Amino acid sequence: MLETMILEERIDYTGDQLRSHFVREKAGITADGVVAFRGACAVTGPRLVDIEDAEQHSSIIAEEMLHFIGEHFECTLREANYRLRLFVSILSETIRELAPELVITRDGDDLYLLGKKLTVAIATVTPVSTVFHCGVNIDPRGAPVPATGLAEIGVDEDRFTAAVLDRYRQECLSIDLAIRKVRGVG
Amino acid sequence: MLETMILEERIDYTGDQLRSHFVREKAGITADGVVAFRGACAVTGPRLVDIEDAEQHSSIIAEEMLHFIGEHFECTLREANYRLRLFVSILSETIRELAPELVITRDGDDLYLLGKKLTVAIATVTPVSTVFHCGVNIDPRGAPVPATGLAEIGVDEDRFTAAVLDRYRQECLSIDLAIRKVRGVG
Amino acid sequence: MLETMILEERIDYTGDQLRSHFVREKAGITADGVVAFRGACAVTGPRLVDIEDAEQHSSIIAEEMLHFIGEHFECTLREANYRLRLFVSILSETIRELAPELVITRDGDDLYLLGKKLTVAIATVTPVSTVFHCGVNIDPRGAPVPATGLAEIGVDEDRFTAAVLDRYRQECLSIDLAIRKVRGVG
Amino acid sequence: MLETMILEERIDYTGDQLRSHFVREKAGITADGVVAFRGACAVTGPRLVDIEDAEQHSSIIAEEMLHFIGEHFECTLREANYRLRLFVSILSETIRELAPELVITRDGDDLYLLGKKLTVAIATVTPVSTVFHCGVNIDPRGAPVPATGLAEIGVDEDRFTAAVLDRYRQECLSIDLAIRKVRGVG
Amino acid sequence: MLETMILEERIDYTGDQLRSHFVREKAGITADGVVAFRGACAVTGPRLVDIEDAEQHSSIIAEEMLHFIGEHFECTLREANYRLRLFVSILSETIRELAPELVITRDGDDLYLLGKKLTVAIATVTPVSTVFHCGVNIDPRGAPVPATGLAEIGVDEDRFTAAVLDRYRQECLSIDLAIRKVRGVG
Amino acid sequence: MLETMILEERIDYTGDQLRSHFVREKAGITADGVVAFRGACAVTGPRLVDIEDAEQHSSIIAEEMLHFIGEHFECTLREANYRLRLFVSILSETIRELAPELVITRDGDDLYLLGKKLTVAIATVTPVSTVFHCGVNIDPRGAPVPATGLAEIGVDEDRFTAAVLDRYRQECLSIDLAIRKVRGVG
Repeated sequence: MLETMILEERIDYTGDQLRSHFVREKAGITADGVVAFRGACAVTGPRLVDIEDAEQHSSIIAEEMLHFIGEHFECTLREANYRLRLFVSILSETIRELAPELVITRDGDDLYLLGKKLTVAIATVTPVSTVFHCGVNIDPRGAPVPATGLAEIGVDEDRFTAAVLDRYRQECLSIDLAIRKVRGVG
Repeated sequence: MLETMILEERIDYTGDQLRSHFVREKAGITADGVVAFRGACAVTGPRLVDIEDAEQHSSIIAEEMLHFIGEHFECTLREANYRLRLFVSILSETIRELAPELVITRDGDDLYLLGKKLTVAIATVTPVSTVFHCGVNIDPRGAPVPATGLAEIGVDEDRFTAAVLDRYRQECLSIDLAIRKVRGVG
Repeated sequence: MLETMILEERIDYTGDQLRSHFVREKAGITADGVVAFRGACAVTGPRLVDIEDAEQHSSIIAEEMLHFIGEHFECTLREANYRLRLFVSILSETIRELAPELVITRDGDDLYLLGKKLTVAIATVTPVSTVFHCGVNIDPRGAPVPATGLAEIGVDEDRFTAAVLDRYRQECLSIDLAIRKVRGVG
Repeated sequence: MLETMILEERIDYTGDQLRSHFVREKAGITADGVVAFRGACAVTGPRLVDIEDAEQHSSIIAEEMLHFIGEHFECTLREANYRLRLFVSILSETIRELAPELVITRDGDDLYLLGKKLTVAIATVTPVSTVFHCGVNIDPRGAPVPATGLAEIGVDEDRFTAAVLDRYRQECLSIDLAIRKVRGVG
Repeated sequence: MLETMILEERIDYTGDQLRSHFVREKAGITADGVVAFRGACAVTGPRLVDIEDAEQHSSIIAEEMLHFIGEHFECTLREANYRLRLFVSILSETIRELAPELVITRDGDDLYLLGKKLTVAIATVTPVSTVFHCGVNIDPRGAPVPATGLAEIGVDEDRFTAAVLDRYRQECLSIDLAIRKVRGVG
Repeated sequence: MLETMILEERIDYTGDQLRSHFVREKAGITADGVVAFRGACAVTGPRLVDIEDAEQHSSIIAEEMLHFIGEHFECTLREANYRLRLFVSILSETIRELAPELVITRDGDDLYLLGKKLTVAIATVTPVSTVFHCGVNIDPRGAPVPATGLAEIGVDEDRFTAAVLDRYRQECLSIDLAIRKVRGVG
């Protein structure tokens, strides 16, 4: 019970979009959902959800990103983090499929190409759900660390976006089936 | 709170090893744990935990496998499946690191190389925990489907095993930290 | 994610059918599911799941019943009981719709017509799920208490069965939507 | 562990009453609880908890309602919705008992008489509990859809209120017992 | 919703009593419950629930013990362990009250008097609940470690048993109230 | 996975410290944690987390207290209350060890010496965790009820604080082990 949508609308990500029912409002999705959209990225100060970032007076900035925002109901923060890591694994696998020569490495929920950061990601709770944001650099200018983006590495955004959303939906479905097809053991 | 151990002992996997406290018995681990060992694989009939396999009168057979058995306490079957998929992602990423030219694809909790099956995997519940088995073919002879193994693809087992266990331990630790470092949103 | 099926096969209910994956085996349903079938009912002694019944050396017997067996995964025993009571409410509402003049009363998970028992019901856990059995008398002969059945009260079984399964599927779906459409309060 | 009280005080319902510890404040109930009271109903704009209503710029209005507010601790939003539907089933069953000729139909957590809406209902979370509001029209004037009320259908409010609260308390108790009287199955 | 009973019947504890619905069978308690009774204690080999004991080929033996068996429904194994430790704290506090000069020390779920073991305790899961056994030596003869008992330390069993059960019931009730009387914080 | 720290900094407790990530901010702890510090105590009006206190227009005041603030993630409010009671039991046991002649009595999460109140305690939820405050009077002046403090009873604060934190860490660890070392029963 997960639906996805690629939004036509351009939305600059400021952190305010990481909230309950954003997915519903933008995509009309009444189930769990993930939406994708393009826009700049600038998250600073009190909008930082990651306390480690806030402690380090860090910020999350990019000229242009492909953003994914997901919302899962009946999902603990631990589960939301498992889901986010699987989502990031899928990003990596999809890049591999589209550009087999690129050696992307994953460290938790971050992807790197030759030491340059390609993504940002965070999962947190709302009063009624868990939400995640995962941003994939298109044009990484402004990032506070060495970074690269889909434009530089030559990955077609549209095919990438569609493939990622499709795989994640498949992944979720196959987990729903996996928990229903085993007998217990001793 | 996860410990891992590579067992010296050779153990043929029959399905009986997929039970609570196997990890503790073999490795003396009193926390959550994953053990790795080598041995043949032959799971048939009533020992099949996967009901889909049992329905299809399938069997899980290989001449030689690298086996991983994990046990997690306070873990739902859903979580156990997220963990297993992350574990399988780590297998794939580790092969990539050791043999960058190989294009491994992941489909749920299965890995393939050019359509040949490299792994088997299942997660289930015990009365006190969840457990998983993930077997990586070394010599796939006997498998009921086209299959390959670490020997054929030239991946060094020892480095592979050590790297996989180390990454999974890191992954679990970093998730434990991730759920403790975010503020909630609206 | 709930599927239903009316089985053509006649199955006498002995209590053995109240187990994990019965629904899957009979109906090929890989999601949560409810199946309906006809058959006698005779549950006695150690097959009684209800300890209150067992304590009273009671038994559950009817010449002919319409049986419903449901299986829900990721569902606590408490939830399984809420679901069962809603299911029994739906039985009552459907009878009302088909035979508006009948005054059915519900007491927990039992239905009565003028003091005569119409149904039996129980929910319990398996190692991997929760399951419920709800039996609606067609021909109540053999029951240890005053009882009636669909035959006597003139309710068409086929319309009844189809309507009940359809309503329960709708109920489950609408609850899945209900938890996704509210904001939290203070 | 559920207590109920009929409040003497008249309270107009604006949505602000749907919050944690309202039941405790008004009734001195220190357990889970449900209170009933009379008052107008006018919930609009940002006070709407139902996002579907808010999206449709809907509002919840009635000249006079019988309001029920319940609070359950250690209760998920899913559970709160099961409880609410059982509560609404009980409303319907109680009307049936008091006025057997009326054919009330239930659609999720709404009751209708011949297509006219009789009730409104919603369940949501607070930081420490779940709460529900269920309003039964007495005088439905102002409602944005065709509606009826207890006055029109001739149901005695006092008997109705007392019976509903009593049944719901019994229902909760009997579920507490039901989960304690079954053995598990395979 | 916890009831307690002191059984008149003498029951030798072999480990078989640590199972679901033992409390119900012996005391007729249909809620959560704790029963107390006297009897010998001899738990060895496969009846040991504590795998650490089984690994060490240990056994649990005493000539005469005061046994407490508790069963809690809707309770995780973690919770069951918290409850057991509180129960053991209450044992210690009650001894203190009855014999203020004795310096009892608690180490997890074990009590000692001057290095001599006074109690044994374990909590585990059943398919439908969690259960605990806590045995307080009366006559510790046969114990595999230095041990003492209520007889030697001069504590009146009857007053002790009644006070322990009463305090535990109060403790459980006051926790049920504590979770219902706080507002959340930021 | 619990860390503790004794803060050098003096902090007056006003209730504002009872929030998520206070422990992390003050002690740099990225796991679950408990910090101890000295300071006055004055919690009044809307800062009271305990609704019972707020209802009674009570306040929590002391000239000087030893404060403990704990934060546990993935912990329900029920669990947080079990933990708090174990923490308070440990306070009592530690006083007993350091001053065996004092007869401290525990009532829920309060400690008394001869009817004089020694401690205050509360546990509640944040959006991402549960937190507790436990204050042990050093100088109880200002308390609204008869009270005593560590100064009066002659317990050395430094040894007390270190011993309490050490015991609680051991208690948590031993519970983590306890849930991993039992087999289930029938």
